[in-house]
Amino acid sequence: MQTLHVSLGERSYPILIGDGLLHEPALLAGQIAGRDVLLVSNTVVAPLYAPRLKEALTGRRIVEVVLADGEQHKTLATAARVFDTLIANRCGRDVTVVALGGGVVGDLAGFAAACYQRGVALVQVPTTLLAQVDSSVGGKTAVNHPGGKNMIGAFHQPRAVIADTAVLASLPPRELRAGLAEVIKYGLIWDEAFFDWIEAHLDALLARDAPALGHAIHRSCAIKAEIVSRDEREQGERAFLNLGHTFGHAIEAATGYTAWLHGEAVGTGLLIAADLSARLGMLDQRVVGRLHALLQRAGLPVAAPRIGAARALDYMRLDKKVQSGRVRLVLLSGLGRSLVTGEYPDGALDATLAAHFG
Amino acid sequence: MQTLHVSLGERSYPILIGDGLLHEPALLAGQIAGRDVLLVSNTVVAPLYAPRLKEALTGRRIVEVVLADGEQHKTLATAARVFDTLIANRCGRDVTVVALGGGVVGDLAGFAAACYQRGVALVQVPTTLLAQVDSSVGGKTAVNHPGGKNMIGAFHQPRAVIADTAVLASLPPRELRAGLAEVIKYGLIWDEAFFDWIEAHLDALLARDAPALGHAIHRSCAIKAEIVSRDEREQGERAFLNLGHTFGHAIEAATGYTAWLHGEAVGTGLLIAADLSARLGMLDQRVVGRLHALLQRAGLPVAAPRIGAARALDYMRLDKKVQSGRVRLVLLSGLGRSLVTGEYPDGALDATLAAHFG
Repeated sequence: MQTLHVSLGERSYPILIGDGLLHEPALLAGQIAGRDVLLVSNTVVAPLYAPRLKEALTGRRIVEVVLADGEQHKTLATAARVFDTLIANRCGRDVTVVALGGGVVGDLAGFAAACYQRGVALVQVPTTLLAQVDSSVGGKTAVNHPGGKNMIGAFHQPRAVIADTAVLASLPPRELRAGLAEVIKYGLIWDEAFFDWIEAHLDALLARDAPALGHAIHRSCAIKAEIVSRDEREQGERAFLNLGHTFGHAIEAATGYTAWLHGEAVGTGLLIAADLSARLGMLDQRVVGRLHALLQRAGLPVAAPRIGAARALDYMRLDKKVQSGRVRLVLLSGLGRSLVTGEYPDGALDATLAAHFG
Repeated sequence: MQTLHVSLGERSYPILIGDGLLHEPALLAGQIAGRDVLLVSNTVVAPLYAPRLKEALTGRRIVEVVLADGEQHKTLATAARVFDTLIANRCGRDVTVVALGGGVVGDLAGFAAACYQRGVALVQVPTTLLAQVDSSVGGKTAVNHPGGKNMIGAFHQPRAVIADTAVLASLPPRELRAGLAEVIKYGLIWDEAFFDWIEAHLDALLARDAPALGHAIHRSCAIKAEIVSRDEREQGERAFLNLGHTFGHAIEAATGYTAWLHGEAVGTGLLIAADLSARLGMLDQRVVGRLHALLQRAGLPVAAPRIGAARALDYMRLDKKVQSGRVRLVLLSGLGRSLVTGEYPDGALDATLAAHFG
């Protein structure tokens, strides 16, 4: 088992990464202080892993919420269902919410934990690659609004993240590929050597080679932990983590959060962001080419839906990175180097959107 | 104008208290950084003061939400309406939410500000005595759930609190009395001399004598600012501020949040808490007598609804102060001295509830 540490003063917490961690009941039990546990999962994950977690928590009172699967259920109405369950079971401020699942479960259960009684303990048990490398770490929680993704949320750090890499064996291939988009993102924004490593080890990652996956998860979480520790509430460089996401959110919103997985939309978004960076003369065109090839080898989509540039921009304007009406963009100033800016020629953005969205 | 300071590091903010502050447009305008303002008020307050605030904010884009009046509207559904408005108007992360109204408006608008895009700026402009002395200060925001008051919420400190004491002239007498219950609370929990002062100046307060109200608000806010600065997230002594509230919440919940004003329920709750403290031998019975007389002189109810002790306890168990199934109580260990404890003989609580709830 490898342990990373997210340094946030009294909100610091460990990320535990290893093969078979869900078979070590003391790991989870040790993170839970009170008597009551609310276990939140979904219809896909619950049958696979909920019994094991419940066994690990023998002696505690366990209340369960099983959500329908899919981003379209990450809503305020679903969060209200979690609140109803907590209250119907008279869970107090000492309840611990355990989020067992992918990004949707983690974001939604995290938001419920952030708001219930103004904040209760949360433990993240991510079961997808995307959740293990990204969404379970860093304390961002949210639900979607029909008008925009993650528009209603809170910063609420977990007490611990327990990432059992063994669960990735049962992950659908499409979900594995979607997670790789976020892994690639870390190389792009922060670490050229890691990007090189991903290129060299992509076949092993796709084949679910355990050491390769373990390294990819550890390095991704280490980068995220470092960035989050420096800038918990996204006043500055934490926004680098959103590379490709503003474009990706437009893709997700335009397709009703159902046709594209989040990681798929981010993958295409990375390419659009890199393309725009190159058009602005900040990034070598060859990096765009390498990224395009890598996404294709990973089986990720590289073509955005043809919704038109105007509609894409419209959706982008709903993104949280808008400031005084202007979309702030995360761009690449080199491989492994990123920046956030609202200062760019509109023409370059328009041309980029036209090239990708039609 | 008097200025108090809530010391919370980078979340510090001023409380401005004075007669006629809403006639000084620069005060409000100076607290708002961005271009967009969401003004949240209700049908009673909006016609009285919204035009003045909008004038003060000339040049900014102002979006307005006017809520129905009453605690029964402090719900997640109403918060969703605020989110809808923010998103329909494409307000970004740089929007400032201005809460113009009493405790319901402040709590609900504050919660919406806490969650919109994971937190946007909030300015509290309290227009009731209760909101000026209590709910607008300290960063507690929430909505109610049918199963319990303030069950869904967040800690979200405002950028500033602007308390214009002139608005109290138009406050309905019942609202004024309800606010006095919280003023009395500060004397009970923290400051014997202030309790003495309230006794001596109650007639002036009821007659809305400006210097008397000004002092009561300033001293109440000073006590609250001191307690909140020491314990922002209620790990310890901040709970003193909840004296009487667990009993009061039971009264409010049992009566559907409509028959009793929050301050009225708190007033009766203070008396029940003092009575229990005396039964436990911690408080001189004469203090209970003084409190009873003071509440009566203030025109506040001193008799809880006869819902029965069992039902009252049931509602109390839904309170956020429950730990491992046990209700923690704020009690008085003397006039001006409070404590929080889960260690009390159940018999004393039962007898107290039977005496007050039947």
